[in-house]
Amino acid sequence: MAGSEHTSKQFDAELEAVRARVLQMGGLVESQIRLAVESLISGDVALMNRVIEDDHRVNALEVEIDESCNRILVRRQPAAGDLRMITTVIKTITDLERIGDEAEKIARMAKLLSQKDRLYLPRYNEIKHASDIALDMLRKSLDAFARLDLSTAAQVVRQDEQVDEEFRSIMRYLITFMMEDPRTISTSLEILFVAKAIERIGDHAKNMSEYVVYMVKGRDVRHVTVEEIEREVLE
Amino acid sequence: MAGSEHTSKQFDAELEAVRARVLQMGGLVESQIRLAVESLISGDVALMNRVIEDDHRVNALEVEIDESCNRILVRRQPAAGDLRMITTVIKTITDLERIGDEAEKIARMAKLLSQKDRLYLPRYNEIKHASDIALDMLRKSLDAFARLDLSTAAQVVRQDEQVDEEFRSIMRYLITFMMEDPRTISTSLEILFVAKAIERIGDHAKNMSEYVVYMVKGRDVRHVTVEEIEREVLE
Repeated sequence: MAGSEHTSKQFDAELEAVRARVLQMGGLVESQIRLAVESLISGDVALMNRVIEDDHRVNALEVEIDESCNRILVRRQPAAGDLRMITTVIKTITDLERIGDEAEKIARMAKLLSQKDRLYLPRYNEIKHASDIALDMLRKSLDAFARLDLSTAAQVVRQDEQVDEEFRSIMRYLITFMMEDPRTISTSLEILFVAKAIERIGDHAKNMSEYVVYMVKGRDVRHVTVEEIEREVLE
Repeated sequence: MAGSEHTSKQFDAELEAVRARVLQMGGLVESQIRLAVESLISGDVALMNRVIEDDHRVNALEVEIDESCNRILVRRQPAAGDLRMITTVIKTITDLERIGDEAEKIARMAKLLSQKDRLYLPRYNEIKHASDIALDMLRKSLDAFARLDLSTAAQVVRQDEQVDEEFRSIMRYLITFMMEDPRTISTSLEILFVAKAIERIGDHAKNMSEYVVYMVKGRDVRHVTVEEIEREVLE
């Protein structure tokens, strides 16, 4: 990492390996969300099962990266930027693992929905749209982490408001839907939980971007406004 | 911490101070949940506002404890049990902060609900019951953390199934309620989100207990079954 004092090539390689593993975990989680939403829309039960089964791969990566971080903390006793990188990774993988859980939940809801009469199902356009934004946020957070790119991180924090608004819009739509035909209530709730899972994914991506700002600037931005973060980034 | 080699009294005092701060943060979060649910049931809007306003105190404690942990990592370069204590604290306060967010959400939902016709509201017995279990889980997690008590930690992991079952039961009840009278749909959804927030609190308390097992045993139990954790604890 730029600006740090360590000279050991071996140490650099270890940090680089951890960073690469985080990006790999991020890629896996991204694919899990994409496939979960795809399976929901297509009704492909085999794909739903695959997403559910593959969650253990996400978990295994979390445990592995966590152990690498502990090893580095013990053996390398990193300071300043390197230490912030490690604590950022420890936090980031917790959020990635929870995004993985949300993907699994979406696949489970998709399974419940696939057993029902498709006749009463509302269209999934809105769900697809919200998940596209959440996926974009996740991708950008990983990019910001990889390239220490603060302006991308700030964009993600801003985008979170968009996902929240999508969620509220889906909820309003479902309420109308349920009121018009109370037989759709139970199905609509399952779709609502899918929307909620997507909203959570946005929250986790936002957390990840906030950690990036912290890693680079050494300033905690988790509990400040979007405007303050944007000012911080421009400084 | 027992079994570690450091002799510095100053270092011991620093670790003890961090532990005390975590317990203080836990106590604050516990009170936030209790007051949020109380305000929901009583309809006390001043209390709802107080919970919402006090969330910043939870956030401030998280930032402060996080900084203390970083300082200890840099200056003391802890190993073994002490290092596990610090990484456990870093993870624990993230979950505590998110429990605080859920308490704030409950208070916000309570405000929405307080503006509605109380005539159509379902009783809150079930919500109270679920939140009592979640609060008990949180208290036990903090106890397990304070006393390094594995059997209490294992109990919390087991209790999480109970909160999940309470959530499903509230959902079934609300579905019946909405189907009988579609005018209650929007109100029922708000209550459902309160129930969801309580279920999340249970999840976070469970995470915290799993970290305690890790801290004491040095073995990651986040992705194993309850039975395996119980075996681990008995060993």
